[in-house]
Amino acid sequence: MKTIFNHRSIRQYKSTPIEQALLDKILEAGTRASTTGNMQLYSVVVTRDEKAKESLAPFHFNQPMVKQAPVLLTICADLNRFNSWCEFRNADAGYDNFLWILNSVVDASLFAQNLCLAAESEGLGICYLGTALYNAPEISKALNLPKGVIPVTAITVGYPDQNPPLTDRLPLFAVVHDEQYVANSEERINELYAEKEAMESSAKFVTENGKENLAQVFTDVRYKKADNLHFSAKLLGFLKEQGFEF
Amino acid sequence: MKTIFNHRSIRQYKSTPIEQALLDKILEAGTRASTTGNMQLYSVVVTRDEKAKESLAPFHFNQPMVKQAPVLLTICADLNRFNSWCEFRNADAGYDNFLWILNSVVDASLFAQNLCLAAESEGLGICYLGTALYNAPEISKALNLPKGVIPVTAITVGYPDQNPPLTDRLPLFAVVHDEQYVANSEERINELYAEKEAMESSAKFVTENGKENLAQVFTDVRYKKADNLHFSAKLLGFLKEQGFEF
Repeated sequence: MKTIFNHRSIRQYKSTPIEQALLDKILEAGTRASTTGNMQLYSVVVTRDEKAKESLAPFHFNQPMVKQAPVLLTICADLNRFNSWCEFRNADAGYDNFLWILNSVVDASLFAQNLCLAAESEGLGICYLGTALYNAPEISKALNLPKGVIPVTAITVGYPDQNPPLTDRLPLFAVVHDEQYVANSEERINELYAEKEAMESSAKFVTENGKENLAQVFTDVRYKKADNLHFSAKLLGFLKEQGFEF
Repeated sequence: MKTIFNHRSIRQYKSTPIEQALLDKILEAGTRASTTGNMQLYSVVVTRDEKAKESLAPFHFNQPMVKQAPVLLTICADLNRFNSWCEFRNADAGYDNFLWILNSVVDASLFAQNLCLAAESEGLGICYLGTALYNAPEISKALNLPKGVIPVTAITVGYPDQNPPLTDRLPLFAVVHDEQYVANSEERINELYAEKEAMESSAKFVTENGKENLAQVFTDVRYKKADNLHFSAKLLGFLKEQGFEF
């Protein structure tokens, strides 16, 4: 519980390497997470090699922690291993569809979060890189991912060389609905986002980017519609190349 | 770490209710998980009402723990709240596409796994129900989920009334690849699945179902191709109804 409430994303790491035994323990902790039908529909590619990190960095938009962290983990949804098992056992697998993309993405995410908490409980710091989905084809090629495998997220791991403040969150009732989903009326939205919008850092983002409000910083600067559509189409194309039909 | 390595899915619960303060703490622990751009693209609907649990049970194929557990949590990927915020702030949201389905499914999964570990660290037991994706339209209707919201998984929570053994996992090297993904040759697959196939319980499943091997129990009994295709198409249709375009 303490580990959970202490989490902050770490973007600066010491050069101290991570011992293999510790890394194995953390990855094994990942595998203790629940998984669809105990099928373990995930894999992780461990990148420690400096040159490999350098070649992956552009696919994560050159975020500096990719090269700086001693370990980069690429977390993959993986139907290849299960499909291969079926193939070699003369069993007729039917997992190359949309339902199983989502099942395996959930599996991979639970594995990832378990290993992150295990890492943090051992004094390591982590940062998720959502960029894995943006450049899935390039990452897939670099890591030799076969059909049925999708890089879902990447995680940098290392000993923290910073201690950033806790990140703000919406009030709990923004995400918790009792018995029925409460519609997001304008009044409710104003209430849920009041604190976030009033933060000094938010005002700074708005001013720096010449926008009217914080929401526009997201839609016009951070995650723009044109970019979203581009990367979404790219991701869909990649999934079809990876053998999924839908 | 101890909590992680102690995890087993709990399918029998005591009738002891969960205090509201404890449940809130667990849900708050969920919100400390990493989230895409701190957008918190998830929601949870809490079901305690007996009649509500009864009406949801068939959508989880009447697994008995749905009615027996004091609390059922339906974990949702949620773009509605963020989109509503954008709408009321005159910001042009572009999140109704495939990329953001996956971003929000990952967000929802990290939230879910955090709250599960928090629950377990407080002596509660949990069980994930993958059935939420199978009957997403029905669950969505029952819980009044608006556009942009997808039930991703459900979790039963309560005080354990059983202590099942740890579930087997593949050897660690099945899921961990060093620098490059190792192709799943027949030799490798034989090695990875040897222990699982040799288990007494596996032999029992094979015999009981009149199959040649364990893989066929998965493909012909547990997760059949025809069912997968049916539920996959149903899920895709639902996502389009929920306003996603791809």
